[in-house]
This record gives sequence, C-alpha cells and structure tokens, in this order.
Amino acid sequence: MSEQISIVVDGQEKSVDAGTTGAQLFFEQREVVVMRVDGSLQDLSRELVAGTTVESVDISSEDGLNVLRHSTAHVMAQAVQQLRPDAKLGIGPYIKDGFYFDFDVAEPFTPEDLKTLEKMMLKIVNQNQQFQRRVVTEEQAREEMANEPYKLELLNKSSEADTAGEGVSVEVGAGDITIYDNVDRKTGEAVWCDLCRGPHLQNTKIISNAFALTRSAAAYWLGSEKNKQLQRIYGTAWPTKEDLKAYQERLAEAERRDHRKLGAELDLFSFPDALGSGLPVFHPKGGIIRKAMEDYSRQRHTEAGYEFVYTPHITKGHLYEISGHLDWYKDGMFPAMHVDEELNEDGTVRKPGQDYYLKPMNCPMHNLIFDSRGRSYRELPLRLFEFGSVYRYEKSGVVHGLTRVRGMTQDDAHIYCTKEQMKDELTSTLNFVLGLLKDYGLDDFYLELSTKDPEKYVGGDEIWEEATRTLAEVAEASGLDLVPDPGGAAFYGPKISVQARDAIGRTWQMSTIQLDFNLPERFNLEYQAADGTRQRPVMIHRALFGSVERFMGVLTEHYAGAFPAWLAPVQVVGIPVAEAFNDYMQGILDDLKKRGIRVEGDYSSDRFPKKIRNASKDKTPFVLIAGGDDADANAVSFRYRDGSQDNGVPVQEAIERIVAAVQSRTLQDGPVRSSENDDAAAVAQAGSESAAEAATADAVASSAAVES
Amino acid sequence: MSEQISIVVDGQEKSVDAGTTGAQLFFEQREVVVMRVDGSLQDLSRELVAGTTVESVDISSEDGLNVLRHSTAHVMAQAVQQLRPDAKLGIGPYIKDGFYFDFDVAEPFTPEDLKTLEKMMLKIVNQNQQFQRRVVTEEQAREEMANEPYKLELLNKSSEADTAGEGVSVEVGAGDITIYDNVDRKTGEAVWCDLCRGPHLQNTKIISNAFALTRSAAAYWLGSEKNKQLQRIYGTAWPTKEDLKAYQERLAEAERRDHRKLGAELDLFSFPDALGSGLPVFHPKGGIIRKAMEDYSRQRHTEAGYEFVYTPHITKGHLYEISGHLDWYKDGMFPAMHVDEELNEDGTVRKPGQDYYLKPMNCPMHNLIFDSRGRSYRELPLRLFEFGSVYRYEKSGVVHGLTRVRGMTQDDAHIYCTKEQMKDELTSTLNFVLGLLKDYGLDDFYLELSTKDPEKYVGGDEIWEEATRTLAEVAEASGLDLVPDPGGAAFYGPKISVQARDAIGRTWQMSTIQLDFNLPERFNLEYQAADGTRQRPVMIHRALFGSVERFMGVLTEHYAGAFPAWLAPVQVVGIPVAEAFNDYMQGILDDLKKRGIRVEGDYSSDRFPKKIRNASKDKTPFVLIAGGDDADANAVSFRYRDGSQDNGVPVQEAIERIVAAVQSRTLQDGPVRSSENDDAAAVAQAGSESAAEAATADAVASSAAVES
Repeated sequence: MSEQISIVVDGQEKSVDAGTTGAQLFFEQREVVVMRVDGSLQDLSRELVAGTTVESVDISSEDGLNVLRHSTAHVMAQAVQQLRPDAKLGIGPYIKDGFYFDFDVAEPFTPEDLKTLEKMMLKIVNQNQQFQRRVVTEEQAREEMANEPYKLELLNKSSEADTAGEGVSVEVGAGDITIYDNVDRKTGEAVWCDLCRGPHLQNTKIISNAFALTRSAAAYWLGSEKNKQLQRIYGTAWPTKEDLKAYQERLAEAERRDHRKLGAELDLFSFPDALGSGLPVFHPKGGIIRKAMEDYSRQRHTEAGYEFVYTPHITKGHLYEISGHLDWYKDGMFPAMHVDEELNEDGTVRKPGQDYYLKPMNCPMHNLIFDSRGRSYRELPLRLFEFGSVYRYEKSGVVHGLTRVRGMTQDDAHIYCTKEQMKDELTSTLNFVLGLLKDYGLDDFYLELSTKDPEKYVGGDEIWEEATRTLAEVAEASGLDLVPDPGGAAFYGPKISVQARDAIGRTWQMSTIQLDFNLPERFNLEYQAADGTRQRPVMIHRALFGSVERFMGVLTEHYAGAFPAWLAPVQVVGIPVAEAFNDYMQGILDDLKKRGIRVEGDYSSDRFPKKIRNASKDKTPFVLIAGGDDADANAVSFRYRDGSQDNGVPVQEAIERIVAAVQSRTLQDGPVRSSENDDAAAVAQAGSESAAEAATADAVASSAAVES
Repeated sequence: MSEQISIVVDGQEKSVDAGTTGAQLFFEQREVVVMRVDGSLQDLSRELVAGTTVESVDISSEDGLNVLRHSTAHVMAQAVQQLRPDAKLGIGPYIKDGFYFDFDVAEPFTPEDLKTLEKMMLKIVNQNQQFQRRVVTEEQAREEMANEPYKLELLNKSSEADTAGEGVSVEVGAGDITIYDNVDRKTGEAVWCDLCRGPHLQNTKIISNAFALTRSAAAYWLGSEKNKQLQRIYGTAWPTKEDLKAYQERLAEAERRDHRKLGAELDLFSFPDALGSGLPVFHPKGGIIRKAMEDYSRQRHTEAGYEFVYTPHITKGHLYEISGHLDWYKDGMFPAMHVDEELNEDGTVRKPGQDYYLKPMNCPMHNLIFDSRGRSYRELPLRLFEFGSVYRYEKSGVVHGLTRVRGMTQDDAHIYCTKEQMKDELTSTLNFVLGLLKDYGLDDFYLELSTKDPEKYVGGDEIWEEATRTLAEVAEASGLDLVPDPGGAAFYGPKISVQARDAIGRTWQMSTIQLDFNLPERFNLEYQAADGTRQRPVMIHRALFGSVERFMGVLTEHYAGAFPAWLAPVQVVGIPVAEAFNDYMQGILDDLKKRGIRVEGDYSSDRFPKKIRNASKDKTPFVLIAGGDDADANAVSFRYRDGSQDNGVPVQEAIERIVAAVQSRTLQDGPVRSSENDDAAAVAQAGSESAAEAATADAVASSAAVES
C-alpha cells in the first residue's frame, strides 16, 4: 500500500495515494479540465500535494473556458508554423469569448489562410496531442527559443522583473519558467512547443470541433506603437458545437444591431473623415432623437432639483493643475494651445503666454461656480447640472463608433452636500439613474464598485476608505448585484457604475456615481455651517447617460434601430392605398402634426407595397394606411413594425392612441403587441459587447470609459 | 468791383467775390463750424474755389461733432505739453462721443492731472486761440517736428505711402502735408502746433465749456503690442453744456446697467480668472435665463421648419483649408493641437500627426452633414440648426464682458436652398429674426449691409455682386433703414446685420444673415434638380441672437437686470407680513410651483421692510404679500418692481395672472403699470454703446463681432 496524503477536494477532506495527479483524481468528471490548487490554476497532470486545497474547474466555467481558449491558441500557432515555417511567435492569450495569437510573418494572413488553418487545426485536434508542461532553467529556455526572437525578448523582460500586461504574463510570469510541448500520442515526440505559463487542457481532443478563426488584423508587438507591427489572428472556442453556434448567432445579431451600420442606414449620424477619429456628427434624424433625449433629461433634472449651469470648453492649464488632471490624467487630454504671448521687437518675450486646454472633465469648472461666492449650509445639497462637452485623447485604435469617442457630451452633474447628506443623496441619485434607464427599457442591472488605483490617486487613505465604504453601503442597499472593480476608480475618488444588460443580453457600462472628498480639498471649497463654522462640502460626480453619444449608440443597438415612438425621428408615415385618398390621409396627418407628432406622407410614385417596405426599412413606429373603406368610415388602419395590422380605427381614436404612445414614452409600438425587447431578450444568452469592442478592449490597457 | 466766382452752396447756385472764405460765406450761420467742398471737409478759413459744391456743416451734425472733438483734442495736447513739457505727442483722433490723445510721458497721468488739465484747457478756450492751417514741405515738417519722434515716424510712414488706421490718417494722409498752429489772438504768435490733416474749428471759443476729460489708460503706439506703451487721455466734447450733461447721464445710466456689474449682483454669471479671458461661466440663476432663452429658441426653430444637428468643437485642420478659414481667418483662431504622431524607436516619425483646431465657425461642419449623402431638390430648403459653441482668438485687450468673448454659443443655422428659393428664404429669415427680437422687447431696428473686403475674400466678383444685390433687395423690401458697411463682410459672402436700439437708445449689432455662393463651391455641394441635373445649392448663414452670451449681455443691460417674468430666475417671492401667515403663503407658493412657476418664500428672520428691499434688489417680478386681511379673504397682495401695489387679489386670480404673464412672455410686470422700457426709452437720447466698449472699439482694428 502506497503512502496516503490528505487534501481538501471541492470542500471535502480526502485521502489519496501520494503521486496521484489531478487527472486521476477527477477521472470520472469529464467536464473538469483544469484544477485550482490553493487558489492557483494548474494542469490536471500535476501531482497533488499534501495539505493543499483542490478545486475542480469545469470547462464551462469562466476559468475553464479561458484554458480551453488558451490551448486552442496553441493549436492555432502550431498550425500557423506548419503553414508558414518562417512565422515567429508573439503572444497568444485568451480574451473575452476567444483568443488571439500574434505572429511576425512576411505577408498578412488572408481569409483563405484562415480557412486552411481551421482545417489544419482540426487535424491536430483529432490527433489528440498531449499538452505537456516542462520546468526549464532560463538558460535552457533561451536555447530552445533561440529561433523565437519575441520569446527571447519576453525572457529578457522577465529577468528584468518587468513583465507588463495580461498577454505577457501568459508566457512568462513570476515563479518557474515553463515550456509546453504538444506531444504526438503515437510517437511520444514533441511536435511543437511554446514558452508558456499555462495551464492547459490535457489534450487537444477536448477542444473538439467547436472552434473558429474569426479574423486577422495588424497589431503592434506588446501593444506599443513604437514596436513592430505583427499579424494577429483572432479565434473563438467553446465546449460544444451548440455553444459555438449560439455565440455566432449572438455575433450576427450584434452585427445586425451595430449602431454604426444602423446609424448610416437610418441617416442618424456619421463619422466624417474630415473631422478626425472619434468625432461624430448628428444628422437631422439623429438630432431629433438626441434632442428628445436631452429635452426629457432636462425635464427630469429640473424636477429632481438640479440647477443648470454653463461652462466653456477650454481653460488655462492652471485649473487642471489645481484639480490634479495635469498630473494624473494628462495622457487623456489633448495638448495645450499656447496663446497671449507678447514679444518685444527683438523677439524676446515681454509677457509669457498661457497654455489653454480642452476640458476632459467638467468638475473643476463647476467647482469655480460653487466657489464664485460664499455658500451657506442652507443651499446644500447644491446640484449643478450641465450638458458638458468634453474632449479626451483616446488612442485612435480604441475609438469605436459612438461608444468610444474623443468628443462627448456628458449629462454631467456635481452635487455639493454635507457629510450628513451624502448617503441620502447617493441613494436618491442611484434611484434617479435606475429610473431614467428604465424609461429607456433598460431594466436589468448590476453595479460595479471601482476602487482606488494604488498607482494613480490623490488624497489620504482614510478618506478613500470612508468614501469607498459609503458607496459600498449605498450599492448594497439597492439590492442589486455588486461586482468589485479594484483599481478602476478615477484619481480623485471611488465610483459605482451601473452596468445594464441590453435586449440581447450584452452588458454596457452606463451611469457612474463617484464620491469625492479630494477635489473639495484641492479647490478649498467651503460652506458656512449652521453653527457659523466653515466646513468642507463633499462632492458627488454623476453622469446618467454616461455620455449622450455612448447612450445613443447603446440605445440604437438595444432597440435595433426601432426607436420607441417618442424618440423615433418620424413617428407616423401615412400611406394612402391610392392617389384618390391622398387628401384624406393628409388631413389626418395635419391633425397629428397639430398635436406635435412628427409625420410624413408618402405620396411618391412608388407602388403601395414598396411604400410599406420603405416605411418598414425606416423602422417607423406607426404606418397609417387609408383606402375607400377607411375614408367612408372616417377611419384609418394601423400597420405596426412587426407586420401586424389594426384596421378601421376611427380617426379620432387613432390620433389619441398615437399621441398617448408618444406622451407616455411607451416602449410598445401599439396596443396589440408584446414588447419587441422581451422577444429579443429571450433569444439572447450570455453577455458580450460587440465583437469589435471586445477585440480592441483587450489590446490596450483599458482606460476609464466615462467619468464625470 | 472784385471778380465774381460761381459756386453751389447747400444746393443753390451762388455768386461770390473771389477770395471769399467759408467763414465769410457762412458768417451769419453761427452753427456752421466747417464746410464740405466737393465732398471733402475743409476749414472755414479756406478760400472758396470757382465751380465747387459747398455744403455747410453744423456743429451738431456727425461731421461737426467730430471736428469739435478733434479740435478739443488739440487744446488738450497743448495743455499737456504745458503741464509736462517733456511729453511727446502720439496721435489724437476723434472717436465716438469724444476723442483721445496719446503721449509719451515719464509718468502716467493721475486723476488730479486730469482735473488740472481741464482747468488749463478752459483757459486756452477762453483765450480764443485761432486754429491756423499751413501747407508745408516734408523737409519743413521734419524740421518743425524735430522734437516729436512719433510725428517723424508718421512722416516716414507717409512717405512710404504706408499710412495705417484711422488715427494715423488724422495726422498725415494723402495730399498736402499740413501743420496746424494754435495762434494767440492778441500777439498773433503760434503758441502750439501739431502735424495734422485737419480740418479744425476756427477758434477755441467754439469749444466753450462743454467738454470733460474722462479717464486715462495705457495704449500701445499705433495699437501694436510690439510698440512702446504710451499714456492715453480720453475726453468728450459737446456743442452745449446741456448736451454734455445729457451724455454724462447716459453714461451713468449705462454704468448702472453694465451687465458685468448686474451679472455679479444678481448672481447670473462670472468671468473666472482661472479659466482665462473671455470665457464666462453661467451660474444657476443665469442658467435659468439662458435655458429659458434656449428652450424658446428651440421651440421657435422647430415651428419654423429647422432641423437640429450636433457637431463637435474640434476638427482636423484640413476642413478649414477647404473652407478657406486657415487662409483668411487664421488670426481669429486658436492655435493647433498636434496629435496622433507615431514615432519609431529611434525618434524618427513613422506616421505624421494631425493638427486639430477649435472651430471658429460651424458652417464647414454643417456642410459635411449636407454632403453626408445625396440630396434632392425635394429636400430644399434644408435648414440645419445648432447651438454651436465656437472659439475665436480675440485679443485679450478687446474682450469685454459677455459682449466680446473668446468662447460663444451661436444660435447658428445654415440654410441650403436653390437660387430660386433664396430671396423668399432670406425674407422669411429676416422676418423670423425681427419677430424673435420683438419678443424680447427689442423693436427699434435698422439694417447694415456689409459688403466685400477687397483685401479679404474668396470667389468671383460676379458672384459677390449677385449676392450683394439680392441681400440689398431683401433689406430694402423690409422698409427698415439700410446703412452701408463697406468691407465689413466675412470672406465668403456679404451680410445683412440687424442693429437694434435698446431701452436707453444704444444700438447693438444683433443678428446676422449672410448669403454665400462660395462655400458650396469650395465644398462641392450638390443636389439633384427636378430635371435630374446636378446643381449647386446656395447657402444662407444666420444667427439670430448672434451669440447666446452676447444676447444675454445686451438683454441684461436692456432690462437693467429686471428680466421679464418668463425669464426671471425667481418669478415670485412670497413675503408673509408675520410668521403667522407663513403656512398660508407657502400654500399659495406651492400652487404656483405646481403650475411651473419659480417661487421662493422668504421666511427668514429679517424684518418685513428688509425682505421687501431684498426682493426689490433681486428685481423679482412678482412679490406676493399676505397678512390677516388677505388670509381672511383667501386673497394675496401684489407688489411690483416699480413699487406699486395691488392689494387683496383673490388667490386663484393671482395665480392665473402670474401664470398668464409667464406663458405669454409679456414684457410688462403687471396689469397696472406701463412698460418700464418705454419709461426708460423716454429718458434716453442719442445712441452709444457702453463707455468701455467705445473706448476699446477704436483702439484696435475692429473685427467682425459675430459671424455665422
């Protein structure tokens, strides 16, 4: 009888033979592909160690999927080096929903290459190669990687203890240096290897036929524009073919809903090259939607006791020295404009000039308004609101449609209150946000609590702790799920962000609420308390839409372009069955127009079915049709966006029905149909942002999406 | 009998002795101080020339006042050189309502100096010195001006045929070089002289005691920051003491209405040093006014068939190369922000960057929206509207309050139409403008027609002529006075500007309407005509407020801070006569609030008269008072801004009265009083902008105030 060791397996104490591997331990659990030992993921081939805590990791868990995708990346790299023997390996991490691998190759990959590679990968999968881990010395590693210059560079970085970014740590991290061999089952020979931390699946067979290569693109080595451009291949992998298919359907649905595509089709907005990257313009139809959103926002903010202020888009740099932005946020700002310098005749400087900056955030300017005169406790909470356009220097590579821009308009407010008021104010702000989002049909939320970035913050630790604790209490009291986001805060204070699931189950960061004890200090803000003493107010930064642009982009995808009636650029299209009913139809449209409804009559020479198709393509909420029966009965017929009809509705009732739908901001098109959003949600499964976003998001260090 | 010559005098043929002077001709007309001979102003001492047309110029005419003021400037300069024998003369022109003279002196002038100088001037006036004109050679002039280095510089400039600016031309212009002597009547000796083109009064007596020195300030020689700083003294002069007094009263009234002062007192807006020159912020109370103005503007623009667009505040420079701004308007723009440059590891440029600019005008961006897809004649006129914030690099010396800023938000629209539509569109735009201005109580207008600056324009002459002719026809058809403004157009097309007189008779340039055949050409804008051909649209640029900031500044002065009820930040203040009636008052205020009225209750510990004074200081339109009689009768008492009262008004009637006043946007405070504006207008006489504006306006080359 061999020696027994004691371990904890999935919460239960267990005794196993010394030398037992994870694979042996979980032999009967076919779903288990890797294990977590004392918190660290390990290959199942590793031997179990006495006294450790071992957890099984299923292929369908987040960790399991990551390992599956990482192993699939290895299989892809092996195939690439078969197809292009000169290809040098870059890094190959898993990402959301998939993986990529970078290669230094003479020629970019073609779509045909990807198809060829998929076939080669399937062959490797079916060969059932083993992933085998080897611990090596640094010298050994250098020798084996002599032909892989990028791996050698990583080894150098590693020995400098200077590994950076997620991608790199996949290859070389703290601890042992390891090489993973892909071993031919029959010959026992290593047919391919890579410098890699692992862990990996046991063998390629687990990958099965549920993977796909999605696209290739150029990418700088280690994400730095100073480095060489490599060629990156993106792929995806899933536990089953059904999972893959569902994912591909979600992708296709996301593509159909892509706001950049819909924005062009519906003539809502565009991104003119002449202006530059991340600078959208809103066309008249997009302008109607945006104005409706802004009008409603203004109304809600007025009702909620906000006061409207206006501040300029530029300022002397000193303001952002006071606030700390020029110390902590300069990379996110456009460069200075130097003006007002006065020269003597000999060219020497008589009066030095000033550096002006575009504002990246509105808060410092609102602080100036707070500080424009003495304040009393009677004025608090003071809620200053502005549709403030800010400009942030996002790298052009990460700019994406309306959801990641360089110029954005925040529905921005700063609330100044006493410490006693802050919790109530945070709570009512959170309720205000959630209520507003629900009005747009977003009603499935969770919260993220972003805490201090230890590398990038101002102010004392106690202050941060108190602010973070307060936010956490408010967030928990909401009853919503709360997910930690360590290091995700702006430099001046922690934040709650509201994550909303859209109609196809993707989550978007929408609103942010930040609690800030630091800027009031830096700006020396004060109010006179009831007892006559001078006190420091607390500041709450909040943006509900996030930015108008981003919110509009998300809504366009959420509604798939079929905006609810109150937002729709054209709310009613009138289509007479024949020319004889043009006047009758126009009379109805005129009455609707008088009630403030945005109407159009289609009296073109197109045939009737074409007209119906056009209105449907434009996603007009209400199509009114009138023929002889209607005219005789002083009635009109409805056709809704789902193709259903409601015939012979008395004109007055039709008008009231449309007016009511618009005024109530209903998300339903008509009285007879169920919500389109509910239908769409039923199709959707796990959340994911659009493919393009996911792809860029991991390629760069993520910066805060929207901060007020 | 001496020889007779024939001349035309004030329209009538006349025969006079050869050698007759203007002074002799107009001997009996004591109001005549100078004459216009064949269009040019001349001293009355000049001999009349056969065949010329001579017009008398009264002292109270614009030309007469200018000569009076110019001669007074000479008297002041004589006094200054008596007081400060080392003072060197700069230039000394007349300006609106007065004059100035620049001096190079060791020490700035003190207010006491100005008083001393006034006394010395009065002495000179009473000595009745003669202004005598002498034509001299350039050599002679240099000799006589040997001790006046600035005069010598002007002579150099003159011989280089390079005279610049109004000021300079006062001294040396085309034609003869002349020196004016101030001659002592008794001795016949010249006691003072200046290099000067004239003309002048005959003698100092005409100046009488109706002048004053108003202030002194530093000013660069010839207005250039590269030159030495001189000391400037400003003064004013009028035909009679009564005229002077009326002018001083207007100045005092303008000072009382100064929007910078009222803006601070009423907590409407401020100009934080931290932001920089010309960058105002709007406080909550100013924000209410601004939002009310913008909301109403949005409503009116929607009704008038405008479509709302949104464009960013920055763009790549190329856009402004296409439009021509970087060729013709660069001085008015903030400098570039250079971004997106990519460097190799060795520091060489891999990808050149881009220059981004703040937009000084919205038109090029609206053109991109027009051009974002094919356009049909059916879509024209297409009216794109935006509250577009633009940034213009005004010299910090000319920046003034809200009326001359560096950052402004234009209520900007660009109308694209066919040539056939342009006249109707211009006419309806002009009517729209005038109607909107009338809603704000501005109803006394004239128009200015700004035509091509021969040094600064794009496009062919024919195009300019047609555009100018069209605008002139539309302007004339309005029946309003039309004043030419040669050279005042923007570089792309001529404009009509609406000049409005305010409550104290000053005129302000408000709205502009520009007709533009050039930018459509430069942007290659096209639409498909009914016959299928591709045609070029015409563009109309128009801003009604001009800018929101400027309009707000003008309105603040026009209303003297007493905004009509619909704009007032607080519309109703409730003041109970005693604490016992607090609840009764609050009930009324609550009802008003439900009707959308902005209310405040004053329940502070202040005494009743103090509360009334506070409400009056805040210029609140409606003060409601409630005491025992009111409560018993379910009534309330009104107190209006003029101090009149209306007691015991039934509560429901009071509420309806207030709601009606707000909804109707009436300019009247209450039913019992006449318009405050009418009262104020009765006080006012000739127009003048505020003293500070007048002072700066002449000190620099004037740039276009507001162009869309």
